[in-house]
Amino acid sequence: MNDQNKQVIIAAIPRGYPRPSDFQLNSTSIPTPKPGELLVKTHYLSVDPYQRGWMAQGNVGDLMTGGVVGSVETSLHPDFKPGDFVVAPIGWQEYGISNGKDVRRIHTDRFPISKFLGALGITGLSAYFGIMEIGIPKSGQTVVVSGAAGATGSIAGQIAKLHGCHTVGIAGSDKKVRALIDEFQFDAGFNYKTVTDYDKTLEELCPNGIDVYFDNVGGIITDAIFRHINRKSRIIICGQISQYNLESPDEGPRYLWPLIRTSSKVEGFVLSDFTDKFDEALLQLQDWLSRDLLVDREQVTDGIATAPSAFIDMLKGGNIGKQLVRITNQ
Amino acid sequence: MNDQNKQVIIAAIPRGYPRPSDFQLNSTSIPTPKPGELLVKTHYLSVDPYQRGWMAQGNVGDLMTGGVVGSVETSLHPDFKPGDFVVAPIGWQEYGISNGKDVRRIHTDRFPISKFLGALGITGLSAYFGIMEIGIPKSGQTVVVSGAAGATGSIAGQIAKLHGCHTVGIAGSDKKVRALIDEFQFDAGFNYKTVTDYDKTLEELCPNGIDVYFDNVGGIITDAIFRHINRKSRIIICGQISQYNLESPDEGPRYLWPLIRTSSKVEGFVLSDFTDKFDEALLQLQDWLSRDLLVDREQVTDGIATAPSAFIDMLKGGNIGKQLVRITNQ
Repeated sequence: MNDQNKQVIIAAIPRGYPRPSDFQLNSTSIPTPKPGELLVKTHYLSVDPYQRGWMAQGNVGDLMTGGVVGSVETSLHPDFKPGDFVVAPIGWQEYGISNGKDVRRIHTDRFPISKFLGALGITGLSAYFGIMEIGIPKSGQTVVVSGAAGATGSIAGQIAKLHGCHTVGIAGSDKKVRALIDEFQFDAGFNYKTVTDYDKTLEELCPNGIDVYFDNVGGIITDAIFRHINRKSRIIICGQISQYNLESPDEGPRYLWPLIRTSSKVEGFVLSDFTDKFDEALLQLQDWLSRDLLVDREQVTDGIATAPSAFIDMLKGGNIGKQLVRITNQ
Repeated sequence: MNDQNKQVIIAAIPRGYPRPSDFQLNSTSIPTPKPGELLVKTHYLSVDPYQRGWMAQGNVGDLMTGGVVGSVETSLHPDFKPGDFVVAPIGWQEYGISNGKDVRRIHTDRFPISKFLGALGITGLSAYFGIMEIGIPKSGQTVVVSGAAGATGSIAGQIAKLHGCHTVGIAGSDKKVRALIDEFQFDAGFNYKTVTDYDKTLEELCPNGIDVYFDNVGGIITDAIFRHINRKSRIIICGQISQYNLESPDEGPRYLWPLIRTSSKVEGFVLSDFTDKFDEALLQLQDWLSRDLLVDREQVTDGIATAPSAFIDMLKGGNIGKQLVRITNQ
């Protein structure tokens, strides 16, 4: 069976939270690259919240989108040779063909290859650019992160802390809140599922108000933040995971008025906005990681068949740090 | 009675739209400046939406806030002499004392003095900085303005048009929509009170999507805009007049998600953010106004006793252009 390539495809467009039956594991033969192409063998799949939004726009039968880290098996592309390690957007499959677009060669001598999907991949880059380019953290300012125990949130908080900020994380379990403080260097945190008065808690944990808010979540948590922002605050919209699995659109208080009083801004971004700064960002992230100034926690399941359940679990808040799937059955 | 000074004070904190009984006209004696102060005689009072927000934070008995344009009657301040014309934040009264703070001397040779409350005052400056510093209009882009027939909106649209943008105004009567196109150089406009399908209308009037939205209004009009923004769009929150007179907070769809997909931003501001650029902005506004490139329409009532009703009328959308009160009974 080792000439087979297993893939995860969309079996149904989810309504609400995806279910295992929304995915199907297919077997096909391992493809052969044509001139200008390379064949990548997957070692780790990346599991990320944005894939839920992608599914909503997808079609039944589509290969699940996603980045992988893997090795080049065969190459008819001038820039890659067998044995190279790469990060490649080939989707959730054990082997994938690429024309080289958005494929990045990585060096495997300093860091485990899985890091190139986490702190040294789209996760770390999203945290970095969100905090550095939109948040613009200043020493002594207060930075709040929602989804703070997740892959991006945990890195975002640490980058803010490295810039001398007072960091407060919001997460969905007491275990995660402990991880925020014990592992991810947050100064404080709270469990939004057990705290009942967000305003009181934010006042206690952010006595000087909120200057930067890195939002992965949206919904009522974000509503509360708007009531505590300082003058010239920056709200970074990285994700809105509370909204991705709703069957009908959500409503909440209209909170644009506080932006006037405080001269604040709310800004969304996608990673490709910053392509021309990837190299400098990766150098910085590598430096922090190698000096143990950045903790990149991983949660790994084994085998491509576990990818759907790992994804569903992540959307429901089951993970601390980066959710990965290790491809072992090859 | 010419030693009397009439003032408008808050008689009650309004709930919902202010009523005439929320204001009281008081008579006091004309005050006398102390050393370092000057006495300003009001010629025009400025009537502005932000005053509604101020009232909500005010106290019964407070003098109504507001800018005036007037003449210096007596001065014990080294920078001002009798006969000078000034813009001064002395509130709604016929005579006011100032210590010179935020008082700006004006030249009366080129423009009617009322312009220094409109296109050459806080109104024009708000439109200018909102469009130029946050909107950053680029030729060929689409700029939508809500409250477009109002003082700030009408100027904002014209500044965008002067930068080669396709301008679309939203207003609350057919008469206003005609004014948008006939007087204020908008390319298109619609009446939000008679149009039922905002999405269809925005698609028709903004075939290339929306790059800049200058928002004076908020609420469901602004909700609709979020569904039509382009990549890297800029939403300027200048006012939220639809929200100021609500008796309880409003709810609407949560629309932060589109900011991610489009890498867009929403930013509020107050005029004092740009104090250091006032001079250059005023030079530009004067240039446009003197070359008839900017129409600054005014709606004027006579006598300080008319200020409350002019204010209430403006909050209900009764004005086209800048609402002023001329002080005549002196």
